[in-house]
Amino acid sequence: MATLSSERVPVPRDRDNDYTREAARARQEFLRERTGADLEHVSSYSFDPSSLTGNIEQFVGVAQVPIGLAGPLLVNGEHAQGEFYVPLATAEGTLVASYNRGMRLLHEAGGVTTTIMADHMQRAPAFLFASAREAREFGDWLGQHFDEIKAAAESTTRSGRLQEIERYSAGRILFTRFNYTTGDAAGQNLTGKATQAACRWIKDHHGDIEHYFLESNFATDKKSSQVNMLRTRGKRVIAEATIPNELFHRIMRSDSGLMYRARQVSNLGGFMSGVNNNGAHSANGITAMFIATGQDAANVAESSAAFVYAELRPNGDYYYSVTIPSLIVATYGGGTGLATQRECLEMLDCYGKDKVRKFTEIVAATVLCGELSLGSAIVAEEWVEAHDLYGRNRP
Amino acid sequence: MATLSSERVPVPRDRDNDYTREAARARQEFLRERTGADLEHVSSYSFDPSSLTGNIEQFVGVAQVPIGLAGPLLVNGEHAQGEFYVPLATAEGTLVASYNRGMRLLHEAGGVTTTIMADHMQRAPAFLFASAREAREFGDWLGQHFDEIKAAAESTTRSGRLQEIERYSAGRILFTRFNYTTGDAAGQNLTGKATQAACRWIKDHHGDIEHYFLESNFATDKKSSQVNMLRTRGKRVIAEATIPNELFHRIMRSDSGLMYRARQVSNLGGFMSGVNNNGAHSANGITAMFIATGQDAANVAESSAAFVYAELRPNGDYYYSVTIPSLIVATYGGGTGLATQRECLEMLDCYGKDKVRKFTEIVAATVLCGELSLGSAIVAEEWVEAHDLYGRNRP
Amino acid sequence: MATLSSERVPVPRDRDNDYTREAARARQEFLRERTGADLEHVSSYSFDPSSLTGNIEQFVGVAQVPIGLAGPLLVNGEHAQGEFYVPLATAEGTLVASYNRGMRLLHEAGGVTTTIMADHMQRAPAFLFASAREAREFGDWLGQHFDEIKAAAESTTRSGRLQEIERYSAGRILFTRFNYTTGDAAGQNLTGKATQAACRWIKDHHGDIEHYFLESNFATDKKSSQVNMLRTRGKRVIAEATIPNELFHRIMRSDSGLMYRARQVSNLGGFMSGVNNNGAHSANGITAMFIATGQDAANVAESSAAFVYAELRPNGDYYYSVTIPSLIVATYGGGTGLATQRECLEMLDCYGKDKVRKFTEIVAATVLCGELSLGSAIVAEEWVEAHDLYGRNRP
Amino acid sequence: MATLSSERVPVPRDRDNDYTREAARARQEFLRERTGADLEHVSSYSFDPSSLTGNIEQFVGVAQVPIGLAGPLLVNGEHAQGEFYVPLATAEGTLVASYNRGMRLLHEAGGVTTTIMADHMQRAPAFLFASAREAREFGDWLGQHFDEIKAAAESTTRSGRLQEIERYSAGRILFTRFNYTTGDAAGQNLTGKATQAACRWIKDHHGDIEHYFLESNFATDKKSSQVNMLRTRGKRVIAEATIPNELFHRIMRSDSGLMYRARQVSNLGGFMSGVNNNGAHSANGITAMFIATGQDAANVAESSAAFVYAELRPNGDYYYSVTIPSLIVATYGGGTGLATQRECLEMLDCYGKDKVRKFTEIVAATVLCGELSLGSAIVAEEWVEAHDLYGRNRP
Repeated sequence: MATLSSERVPVPRDRDNDYTREAARARQEFLRERTGADLEHVSSYSFDPSSLTGNIEQFVGVAQVPIGLAGPLLVNGEHAQGEFYVPLATAEGTLVASYNRGMRLLHEAGGVTTTIMADHMQRAPAFLFASAREAREFGDWLGQHFDEIKAAAESTTRSGRLQEIERYSAGRILFTRFNYTTGDAAGQNLTGKATQAACRWIKDHHGDIEHYFLESNFATDKKSSQVNMLRTRGKRVIAEATIPNELFHRIMRSDSGLMYRARQVSNLGGFMSGVNNNGAHSANGITAMFIATGQDAANVAESSAAFVYAELRPNGDYYYSVTIPSLIVATYGGGTGLATQRECLEMLDCYGKDKVRKFTEIVAATVLCGELSLGSAIVAEEWVEAHDLYGRNRP
Repeated sequence: MATLSSERVPVPRDRDNDYTREAARARQEFLRERTGADLEHVSSYSFDPSSLTGNIEQFVGVAQVPIGLAGPLLVNGEHAQGEFYVPLATAEGTLVASYNRGMRLLHEAGGVTTTIMADHMQRAPAFLFASAREAREFGDWLGQHFDEIKAAAESTTRSGRLQEIERYSAGRILFTRFNYTTGDAAGQNLTGKATQAACRWIKDHHGDIEHYFLESNFATDKKSSQVNMLRTRGKRVIAEATIPNELFHRIMRSDSGLMYRARQVSNLGGFMSGVNNNGAHSANGITAMFIATGQDAANVAESSAAFVYAELRPNGDYYYSVTIPSLIVATYGGGTGLATQRECLEMLDCYGKDKVRKFTEIVAATVLCGELSLGSAIVAEEWVEAHDLYGRNRP
Repeated sequence: MATLSSERVPVPRDRDNDYTREAARARQEFLRERTGADLEHVSSYSFDPSSLTGNIEQFVGVAQVPIGLAGPLLVNGEHAQGEFYVPLATAEGTLVASYNRGMRLLHEAGGVTTTIMADHMQRAPAFLFASAREAREFGDWLGQHFDEIKAAAESTTRSGRLQEIERYSAGRILFTRFNYTTGDAAGQNLTGKATQAACRWIKDHHGDIEHYFLESNFATDKKSSQVNMLRTRGKRVIAEATIPNELFHRIMRSDSGLMYRARQVSNLGGFMSGVNNNGAHSANGITAMFIATGQDAANVAESSAAFVYAELRPNGDYYYSVTIPSLIVATYGGGTGLATQRECLEMLDCYGKDKVRKFTEIVAATVLCGELSLGSAIVAEEWVEAHDLYGRNRP
Repeated sequence: MATLSSERVPVPRDRDNDYTREAARARQEFLRERTGADLEHVSSYSFDPSSLTGNIEQFVGVAQVPIGLAGPLLVNGEHAQGEFYVPLATAEGTLVASYNRGMRLLHEAGGVTTTIMADHMQRAPAFLFASAREAREFGDWLGQHFDEIKAAAESTTRSGRLQEIERYSAGRILFTRFNYTTGDAAGQNLTGKATQAACRWIKDHHGDIEHYFLESNFATDKKSSQVNMLRTRGKRVIAEATIPNELFHRIMRSDSGLMYRARQVSNLGGFMSGVNNNGAHSANGITAMFIATGQDAANVAESSAAFVYAELRPNGDYYYSVTIPSLIVATYGGGTGLATQRECLEMLDCYGKDKVRKFTEIVAATVLCGELSLGSAIVAEEWVEAHDLYGRNRP
């Protein structure tokens, strides 16, 4: 309930240690008094709040998001190999069932092949000069001093490695993209620190910079952009499979020919609507996995972009691929170490070091299953009707 | 851990009643055996699983996502008026603190003005004809039979109302957008059913339709698109404020002039990068509120689009607005009635009927606070340096 | 040659009558003296410069752009029916031959079916208010006062008719699109005048407008935009045909199956590259017709957008359609009345009143021929190789 | 006039030599008989048709496009330095006058600074593999064999140099961009031939390629795309200037403050409309120069993209820049050697070898003048009114 008061009353905090059950309870009480809201469930959490340091401020309790289990998902990856049971945190009815059904289809089809094509996180500082000419010269200078800049950036991080500095000019500004590998972390923070250090070194060693901005909508953190769809932010990962039409008939009561026709229309619709994903609904599976496993779900903005490419083979087989150009995931840092989140990563054997590529592949494979499941459902009614019409369903 | 087996073992289900603690426990046990994962925390939930019917399948436990409390947020809306304490479910350190700081700034500036400009949810069936000419005639026919189509659509729903059918042609296909008001529900399901009914009526009454597709990437559910940024899916809501520079100095240790200069470069960067949001990070606040209050977080894909427009006034005041063209929210249905989710809506007095516009305004106001907080942080270092240089910070 | 002088010497003009051979000659002489350039050919023009009033300033001569003749083009339009010989002004070798070849293919296939789906030219004034709330109220007010606004707009024009005022909000600004039919003129000028008059009436009758801008990048004159691709600026016209594979084999030494496969990859490439046209090269034919017939070739920026949708039929027939969403053409006004330009329109029986829809259809049909011609060429080598391989080409 | 006949009558050609006045006359006669069109002016051309070999087929005469002269344009480029009189071929009244006025403004402001930031033309073959994994390996292989591929490509051309092969993956396809420098030619043809040769070499030496396509909408020839706006096709050139407000007042009867406010709204409008150019009308000047100087005007589709970035300085000075990311120009080859076209290049001392960068800078500088001229006109009425109001215009 809204309260109208002349005096602004901030949320209570314990200045000594705010990460305790008591501090949380004080805030629950504060809310109860001010809004009348009962927090019976929000206040039911099973972990010690001290584990939240660095993850949240003014902790008051938890959202309990139900997790459904889908699987087994069969993955033929380079890092993920074999069967997985996938935790999906969602409140959207049928979502888990739909992905589960797609996993069955792909399991019978021999599994999902996954390939990571690129992997880099970036910060994108913009540098301002007297004119474009100095900006261009600075661009060359960046190339000449790459090693020193790399050393400055990497002095701040153990796992981040500067790979490349891309350059895009406009007016008297040079926009750059500092591309890093970031180990098992998503890397937004470490690349931020590293790039800040790099920029300070640059500013100290190049006399012509009028000003620089650490970010200027060219890495587009938490936003979807064509530059990231082209050049990748996070992982660029592809999931593919070729599915015999017999499986569509038997498992999905669908048909590859009908699905392919629908795909053509979806490609056109997507092109005309200016969408960032010509597929069906990859955000559903990605978001549900992100919430379950402690990924930053705000990255769904970026990670929901996708390119679908499909082929109907002469024998009715359906080749289907989904390319996720900017999947931002971690198996270390961020929310991955929280109580339930870590358990969900552990069910996939994906918690901690050297696991992020495995996790990436599992996410991509899950997405593919969801695409084919929804794609099947869309044409199922028609297929059943056609089937009945031609009598093939008769006993 | 991946298991390699020749036989596909599906997730166990209780065919009589799968929404029980026992059924969940059976799945926990199944996972423990197969993957070795301990689900101590995932299995700690405070509600009766029977409440999850219609929200999830193969329930195994919960993700406990920590909630931080930000506020008070002062809103001068048409539906939300006064102060609110806002629950943000996230694991990204500093997010709550940053929004909280922005809320303080805007509180001292007199609050955030919010305005809902448009409100409609859509399904976008595509109709296929022999040629474009029949498609055009069908477009006219849709206009002539709007009342009957509306009746067919609305026969399936109590709260959905068909407002308009937009038409976009390409080749022998007419893409349409069926725009509905949907009461307090987000409305994807009800518009799906209503449009399915409408399409059946249409197919029965128009002889030339070769085929129709209920969706073809023209409503772009769970995806970001220019058509939705232009025409709105969900709510189009604007949050605005004018902030005296003195408040930036005092509260944020920042400066409106520096922020405005950074904004210009961000506008250019965003235009060149092809981003769907020229602002800073609206997805952060939106996602955290979505998870806390039982919204479908996959809609962050769409809801993360935004248009920022700012003005530096001659006296240093900073006018700042953020327009969210496709904010998809509900206060009824979906995950809003789940245990913790409902409590979080209740803290805002936003649970249930006739509350969705109020909730919409609170989300938009929260977003504005986050934009100004991050926008301030980006230039704070520079401002402090400039300040020190000119001696104004000296005691 | 560049001349370096301290004094700025403007181009000479005859203040009494600048549209004479003498005035042109004075400028030729001026150029010859200053740059050494010989203008033998530029100064060879066959018309009286007095005919150029209103079309150009500081006339010095002409560009002679060679015209090639392609055809016969067979059109099954609603306005264009029968065969046409199409003038293409270009210096790109093979362009005319390629379109000519496509015209032969489509002629044998029974011609090109053309359909105009929409027709409106717009100006897009933006109105600024104290806040979004007044902007929203103004939007409603526009609807209530449409008839008066229409009267004010149409008082300035004989052929322009205001159809609709679209509204798009952001911050405290309401962007509008004033959509007009404009008879046989392209209509940029008349809609400019009409909308200026409408805006003045609006400003006089609505007290809350802080300011208005006659244009603000929302009609995107001379630029390509998603809003125009969706909502149409100029004509939205579709050209379609279904071509038997036998014709591809015989005339183009190509194959529908190979072309369709290439189309799939082009669709994906176009989606990923963020292109405004998933087809091949419609700008080539459009530009060549525009220059020949006195259209404003700068409109190629907008008119080059296109949506291609194709289907491979089970029998190998190839359905192919191209949708031009913003084709800006005229048969009256602008450059259409100039000496050679009028002759070129007359060859198509498209000069003057009530001809613009006919001309629109001819342009669209020409574009389709060019798409199929280039699409064939791209796979021809492969087809020939495959053909040779399998011995079918042997005598 | 359309002719309806059962027999298709092709355009007459002289098989021995079709590039003669006689052959052209035969086609004129053919047209006259079939359409009744009189070609008095079209048939008035001043050059020998034999000069058209390689530029056009089925030549029938010329479009005489009037050229207006604007200038002097003062350029402070690296290749273009000093004053230029610019030929603009157009039939749009006021266009020449408007550019001329802008040139006067910029001349008094000290000229336009121009900088070429990047220069490459590309072909973009797509390679198809069994799966994404082979596509990725092929990408690495391309890097390892760059020197050999470069040699194969360059064996076909004297002036083209392969700089880089960019890679973008989706599904089982690797899209590439072969970037070349192309001397004074625009280079579409030479890069086509070179890339064809490179692809053949690649196909011969890499066993896994299932198929390749020489083009797949990833170089987007004759179309506007985000990838070209980011990565450049042709020249990336920037024109800049800083103009004292006194000059806006005196010459343009305009004001930098008003222009800057309008720019902000245009930036927002352009972002929301999804335009490829947030400026005013660069296509106007570019098209008029392209037609005059024998450039391929169909490239206006690509060359019309632009990024405008402006700053209002505290003293009222207006910094304004326009970045053209994909300006496709030549001073050699294509239509540049035709009779009038060559003369127009010669007026700028830009015909032939080693002139293309000079010409590029002149085009960019011209564009800037047009931007400021139209930008001034848009606010001029308001400025005059404000001026009158406050009495400053009184004698």
